[in-house]
Amino acid sequence: MSALFEEIKPYMDKGMAAKAALTLLEWDQETLAPPMADEWTAKVVGGLSNIYLESLVNDDVKKKLEKLQNEREFSQLSVIEQAIVKEWENVIQQLDPIPQKEYQAYTELVARAGNIWAKAKEKNDFRVFCPYLKEIVEYKRKFAMYRKKARKDRKIELYDILLEDYEPGFTIEKLDSFFEEIKKELVPFIQKVVKKGSKKNYRLPRAKYNIEKQQEFCKWLAGYVGFDFSKGVLGESEHPFSTNLHNHDVRISDHYYEENLESAIFSIIHETGHALYEFGIDSEITMTLVGFGTSMGMHESQSRFYENIIGRSESFWKPIYIKLQETFPEQLQNVPIEDFIQAINRVEPGMIRTEADELTYSLHVLVRYEAEKMLLSKEIEVEDLPGVWNEKYEEYLGVSPDSDKNGVLQDVHWSCGDFGYFPSYALGTAVSAQIYKNMQEVMPVEEYLENGNLLPIRDYLKEHIYQYGKRKNTNEILEEMTGEEFNASYYIQYLKEKYSKLYDINGE
Amino acid sequence: MSALFEEIKPYMDKGMAAKAALTLLEWDQETLAPPMADEWTAKVVGGLSNIYLESLVNDDVKKKLEKLQNEREFSQLSVIEQAIVKEWENVIQQLDPIPQKEYQAYTELVARAGNIWAKAKEKNDFRVFCPYLKEIVEYKRKFAMYRKKARKDRKIELYDILLEDYEPGFTIEKLDSFFEEIKKELVPFIQKVVKKGSKKNYRLPRAKYNIEKQQEFCKWLAGYVGFDFSKGVLGESEHPFSTNLHNHDVRISDHYYEENLESAIFSIIHETGHALYEFGIDSEITMTLVGFGTSMGMHESQSRFYENIIGRSESFWKPIYIKLQETFPEQLQNVPIEDFIQAINRVEPGMIRTEADELTYSLHVLVRYEAEKMLLSKEIEVEDLPGVWNEKYEEYLGVSPDSDKNGVLQDVHWSCGDFGYFPSYALGTAVSAQIYKNMQEVMPVEEYLENGNLLPIRDYLKEHIYQYGKRKNTNEILEEMTGEEFNASYYIQYLKEKYSKLYDINGE
Repeated sequence: MSALFEEIKPYMDKGMAAKAALTLLEWDQETLAPPMADEWTAKVVGGLSNIYLESLVNDDVKKKLEKLQNEREFSQLSVIEQAIVKEWENVIQQLDPIPQKEYQAYTELVARAGNIWAKAKEKNDFRVFCPYLKEIVEYKRKFAMYRKKARKDRKIELYDILLEDYEPGFTIEKLDSFFEEIKKELVPFIQKVVKKGSKKNYRLPRAKYNIEKQQEFCKWLAGYVGFDFSKGVLGESEHPFSTNLHNHDVRISDHYYEENLESAIFSIIHETGHALYEFGIDSEITMTLVGFGTSMGMHESQSRFYENIIGRSESFWKPIYIKLQETFPEQLQNVPIEDFIQAINRVEPGMIRTEADELTYSLHVLVRYEAEKMLLSKEIEVEDLPGVWNEKYEEYLGVSPDSDKNGVLQDVHWSCGDFGYFPSYALGTAVSAQIYKNMQEVMPVEEYLENGNLLPIRDYLKEHIYQYGKRKNTNEILEEMTGEEFNASYYIQYLKEKYSKLYDINGE
Repeated sequence: MSALFEEIKPYMDKGMAAKAALTLLEWDQETLAPPMADEWTAKVVGGLSNIYLESLVNDDVKKKLEKLQNEREFSQLSVIEQAIVKEWENVIQQLDPIPQKEYQAYTELVARAGNIWAKAKEKNDFRVFCPYLKEIVEYKRKFAMYRKKARKDRKIELYDILLEDYEPGFTIEKLDSFFEEIKKELVPFIQKVVKKGSKKNYRLPRAKYNIEKQQEFCKWLAGYVGFDFSKGVLGESEHPFSTNLHNHDVRISDHYYEENLESAIFSIIHETGHALYEFGIDSEITMTLVGFGTSMGMHESQSRFYENIIGRSESFWKPIYIKLQETFPEQLQNVPIEDFIQAINRVEPGMIRTEADELTYSLHVLVRYEAEKMLLSKEIEVEDLPGVWNEKYEEYLGVSPDSDKNGVLQDVHWSCGDFGYFPSYALGTAVSAQIYKNMQEVMPVEEYLENGNLLPIRDYLKEHIYQYGKRKNTNEILEEMTGEEFNASYYIQYLKEKYSKLYDINGE
C-alpha cells in the first residue's frame, strides 16, 4: 500500500461522488425534473462540476501524482492503483492546460448554444447557429492548442488531440485508413443493394402499436437480453440513453412511438448493450477513475453488437418472435419471421444518421469525420459546412439533404462541443464485428441464441471486456481477446456476407 | 457589496450544490433507485456529505465569518447577506465543536442503526435495538456537551441544545409550559369525546378503492390545493414525504392502499402543504443558507394547516366532494358530505402516532418529549424506555401498547439520531391554529374554501411566512403576522370548538 496513493485517494473519492451526482442530475433532467427547474438546477450542475474539477486537478494532486509516477513509487502500487494513476494523469493532461476562465466561458457558451442549435434546427436555418458554432470551433482549436503545447509530441494534429478524449489510441492516420476501406468497399456494395432493394425492402405493417404493450414488451426484452433490474432502472425520455452511478445502479431509457414498433425495440436492445458493459465493471474499480467503459467506441461496440449483430439476427428472434406476435396479434400474426427479419434489416440510404440502417450507418459517420477534420485544420470554415455536408451525402449515400434541418443541423453533438466523438460510432460498430467473429470461433453463438440462452455471450464479454473498465484500452482488449489489434476487414466482411444473403447478391 | 462576503460565497455555493445533490439522491432512493444500489450509493452520499461539511465549515470560512460579524463589516451587508452570515454562524456552532472522527463514527453508527431498528421492529424486540440506541444517546449527549462548552451560556441544558437544531428559540422551559397546557386541557377533553364517541365514530365504507383512480384524484387534489407541476414532481414511495432541490424543483410523494382511501388523500394534502412553503421561498434566497423553511415546526405548521384545519373542514370539501364521489361512485354515492366529514374527523385514541387523529395527536408527541428529556438528563436509561413509554400512553391516551413494535419501536427518528425533533410536530400543529385564527380575522377563509378559491390563502401565507425562508424565525414570523409570539391557547381553543361541535359536547 502506497502512503502517497492513500493521500490522493480522498480527492478521487470526492470527484467520483460529484460525478455520480452529476449523472443522477442528468438522468433526472431527462426523465423526471419539472419543466421550470432547469435554470436553477444549472447552478447545482455548475457547482458540482467545479467540485469535480477541483478535486481531481489541483496542485497537491499534481505534485503527488508526479512523485507516484517515478519508477520506484509506481512499482509499489497495485495494478489497479497503477491504472488509476495513469488515467488520472490523462485527466490532468486534458484539463490542466486550459485556463480556468476560458473553460468557464466555454462551458457557458456551450450551455447557451444548445438552445440556439435547437432553435436553428426548428427554423431550419443554419445561419442562426453559425456564429455560435464558429465560437465553439474556435475554443476547441484553442484548447487543443494549449494541450498540444503542454506535451512532448508537439507535432500531433489538433484533431488528434480531440480524438483522444473519446478513443485513446486512434489517430487521424488510423481513422483515415479505416474510413478509406469503408469508402472503397461499402459505397459500391451499397449501390448494388439499393438496386436490388425495391422488392426486398419489406416493412412491418403500417399500424398502431399500443404504447403500454410496447413498454411491457421492451421491459421484458431488456431483461431477456440481460438487464438486471435489481441493479438497474428503466425509464422514459425524449431520446433513449443509458447512464450509471456505479455498477450497481445502471439506468436506461426508451422512447415509444405508437406508429413505430421498431424504434422502441431496437433502442432498448441498444441501451441494454451499454448497460451490460457498466453492470460488468468489476466492483473493485467501480467509482474509481478507471471504473467506466474504456472508450466511446468500445461502449458503442457493445450497444451495436446487441442492437444489430445479435438483435437483428434470425437466431435471436427465433425463440421470442412468437412473444412479439402474441403482444401484437392483429398487426403481426400474418407476418412470418422471415419477413420480420427482412423488415428489420431493410437498407435505405437516407439523410438522417439516427434512422440509418446497419449497412449505410458508417457512411453517415464518414461525412461527419471528414467535415470535422477539415474544420479543425481550417481547410474549411463553419460557413462552408452545409455545402460540404450536402456534397458528401450525395457522394457517399446518393441522397441530397432537403434542408439544413435534415442535413448539417440534425445532430446535437457539435452544439455540445463534441468534436472527435462521431468516429467512435463507426469504429465501435466495426469493433463489434471483430468481436463477433472471435466469439463465433470460440462458442456456438447462433445455437445459444436459438435456445434463448444469452448468458454465455454476456459472460464472455464480461470476462474479456467489461470487468476491466478503463484498465485496458480498446486495442489492448482486442489484442488479448481476438489475437490482433483493431482490424476493419471483419466489419466489411460481416456486412457483405449478411446483406449479400438478405438481398440475393452473388459474386462478392 | 462586501468583498469579504464575496470571498466566502463560493463556499456556500459549493455546499448548496452538494446539498441539492444529496436531496436528489434521497428522493431517488425513496422513489426509484434499484434495490441493490444502496451500499454503493452510500459512498456517493458519504462523499457529498463530506463536501458539504468541508465547504461550509473550514478555517478560511471561520476566519472571514468572524470578521464579517464585527459591527462595521456587518452593517455593510445587505439584509439577506446578514441573514446568511447569522445562519452560517449557527451551522458552524452546530458542527464545529464536534471532533470530525467522532462525527464520522457517529454517522456510521447511525447508518447501521437504521437497519437494526427495522429488524428489531420486525421481530418486536426492543433488546435488539437497545445497545445501538444506548450508543446513539451517548453520542448525542457527548456532542451536546461539546457544543455547550463552545458557547457562552454554559448553564443551558443538553436537551435545549438539541431542540435548537429543529426549533430555534424553543427551550425546555417553553415546551414544558406548552405541553403542560395540553395535558391539563386536552387529556380530560379527549376523555369526554371518547365517551361520546361510539355513535359518532362513523367510518367510510369498507371497500376497495382502485389505486389508479386514487392516484388520479390525488394528483388533481395536489393541484387544487396549489401544487405547481411546472416546478414540481409527484412520485410514489413507501412513506409519503416532501423535499426540494430549490424553489423551482419541489417534490412530494404519496403512498396508496387499496383499502384505505383516507391515507393517500390526507398524505397528499399534508405533503402539498410542505411543498407550498418551499415553492414560496423567494428566488433571491433559494439555494442559499437561508433558502429553506425556517424550522421543522413552522414547516409542520403548514403541512398540518392544510391537512387538518383546511383539509378536514366541511368548507374545503363542499365544492369538491362531488368529484370524489364521482371518482368512487359505488363506494361513496350513498355517503352524504356530513357523514364524510364526520368520518375524516373521528377520534380514536390509539397506539400509533402516524395514524393518530387530529385531536389526540399531540399527546403522542408529549410521550416522546417527556421520554427524550428524561433520557438526555439521565433521569432514565435506554433500558427503561419501553416501560416509561407504556405508562405514559396509558396515562395520557388511555391505551396500553400491545407490543414494542406498536410502542417504543414504532418511529424511525431515534435510530437516525433525531432527538429533539418530535416536539416540532406538536408545536407546528399548535402554530397552525394560531395562524388560522389570524387568517380568519383578516379574510373570509371559509368563503374562499367554499368557492374553491385557495389562492388568497396561499398568497397570504407566502407573504407572511414562506418568502422569508430562514430570514425570520418562528416567533418573529408569528409576532409580525399575528401580533404576538407563539401562544398555545389558540390551539386548545380550536380543538375544543371543533370537536365539541362534531361530538355534541356542551359547556366547555
